[in-house]
Amino acid sequence: MTNVFVIGLGLIGGSFALDIKSVYEDVEVYGIDTDEEHLSQALDLGLIDKKAQPKDLEKADTVIVAVPVSTSMKLLPGILDVVRDDTVVFDVGSTKSLICEVVADHPKRRNFLAAHPIAGTEFSGPSAALKGLYKNKVNIICEVEKTAFKLQEKVLKLFTDIGMRIRYMDPASHDRHIAYVSHLSHISSFMLGKTVIEKEKNERDIFDMAGSGFESTVRLAKSSPAMWAPIFEQNKANVIETLEEYIANLQQFKELMQKGDFNAIYNEMENTNRIKEILKGMNVTAS
Amino acid sequence: MTNVFVIGLGLIGGSFALDIKSVYEDVEVYGIDTDEEHLSQALDLGLIDKKAQPKDLEKADTVIVAVPVSTSMKLLPGILDVVRDDTVVFDVGSTKSLICEVVADHPKRRNFLAAHPIAGTEFSGPSAALKGLYKNKVNIICEVEKTAFKLQEKVLKLFTDIGMRIRYMDPASHDRHIAYVSHLSHISSFMLGKTVIEKEKNERDIFDMAGSGFESTVRLAKSSPAMWAPIFEQNKANVIETLEEYIANLQQFKELMQKGDFNAIYNEMENTNRIKEILKGMNVTAS
Repeated sequence: MTNVFVIGLGLIGGSFALDIKSVYEDVEVYGIDTDEEHLSQALDLGLIDKKAQPKDLEKADTVIVAVPVSTSMKLLPGILDVVRDDTVVFDVGSTKSLICEVVADHPKRRNFLAAHPIAGTEFSGPSAALKGLYKNKVNIICEVEKTAFKLQEKVLKLFTDIGMRIRYMDPASHDRHIAYVSHLSHISSFMLGKTVIEKEKNERDIFDMAGSGFESTVRLAKSSPAMWAPIFEQNKANVIETLEEYIANLQQFKELMQKGDFNAIYNEMENTNRIKEILKGMNVTAS
Repeated sequence: MTNVFVIGLGLIGGSFALDIKSVYEDVEVYGIDTDEEHLSQALDLGLIDKKAQPKDLEKADTVIVAVPVSTSMKLLPGILDVVRDDTVVFDVGSTKSLICEVVADHPKRRNFLAAHPIAGTEFSGPSAALKGLYKNKVNIICEVEKTAFKLQEKVLKLFTDIGMRIRYMDPASHDRHIAYVSHLSHISSFMLGKTVIEKEKNERDIFDMAGSGFESTVRLAKSSPAMWAPIFEQNKANVIETLEEYIANLQQFKELMQKGDFNAIYNEMENTNRIKEILKGMNVTAS
């Protein structure tokens, strides 16, 4: 019997629990969550087999840390302190530099693997967990060489068994790229939602005139602030850079409109249309 | 036998053709398109029964003008010139003020209805036409009182028969509101696509790290420049206003990040989370 501990029973942790239970028979999934209600809900939904406490972590073969990135940074050293030598601990956070730093000199650094599964939805909490969420999704692993070889093997087998594709990257590159393809999208969506809500005091107008295009661009504005504020904080420099470039592009678009240069606007859009080909390529990844 | 003429066999016109053919038996659908290839494709796909020429419009009982808004403005007076007194002509454009102006003094103004079906996808051309696209979607009608009562009745029956819900609005309000819930979304998406493409010269990185969140926010950047450049031109003042507010909100978010005020950032996101409730309300509309 393998004991898997999931710390944080939200969308990401809960979905790992579901997938692990569906591909392995001989596994017991323990849940740890400071939110007692979430923990009970996770048990009721069958995400976990048993509730557990941090002191039970010595029983763990695998530990999944699926809490906001700021909490991960606080918890990880203590988790590594108590786990056994043959236990592998991995996190799933959307930023990787600071998390790698905080464990860099830990005596059990080799028990840790830094991971970022590119999967999720705008929903959160145990009820948002989805079976099969990780199928065909990319999992970005940072500093793989710092994890003990046997534990690498074990955890990469787990990722592969639930259908993930593995990519290796250094933490700084990860954080720089992910600012563009994920963090910026969330800000653009939140600010779009804000702009429309502020203007349209009469919500009936939004309700009736908005179509699927608006719904799609504003979808990420449903995301959890508890998860996202720490991500923006940890990836501050990169995110500010992407925001500056995004704002400059919007500004330039606005100036073209003010000048009435709609040929240039046509060209801007046509050049950006090649996102079609890029998105076609990533269809395997996206849900 | 009723003769319906569809001018412009793209996503919107083609989908009207499909829905009309599926709800009415006694109807012949004629297609007009300056793009000979699109016209043939529309025939092959069964969107239309026959190819037609502008001179055939005198046979029309109903005319659907589904071309870019700039083209609609050019074509509409000439279309009204040739149709019969009992023919109804409607457009489907995403801007309504200028189109209403251009026909305001036409002797056949009462044969025209200004409509904006809130439906569509990011795809274009005859092959993008979808049966059932309009089911449960809102159709915004402007200046309904300027259309002959019998023709209102006829065309509103058509909209209702294919499953649409009708809302009435004056053209200026339409253009102001739609700038927020549709036009701005398209710009935010195009500029997001542009920002990421510019930065990520190595497309493999986008390909592998982008998830469904990015795909969702950038989806509208696949849209047709031929359709959208004229919309931005016709709704210039409103769109510039929304862009200024959007840029100001992004700027403020960036400044909060620079100051390191992540509590304020948390609050910004939490306040905007109520988009959840708004989107829940509009689920009927969105595809």
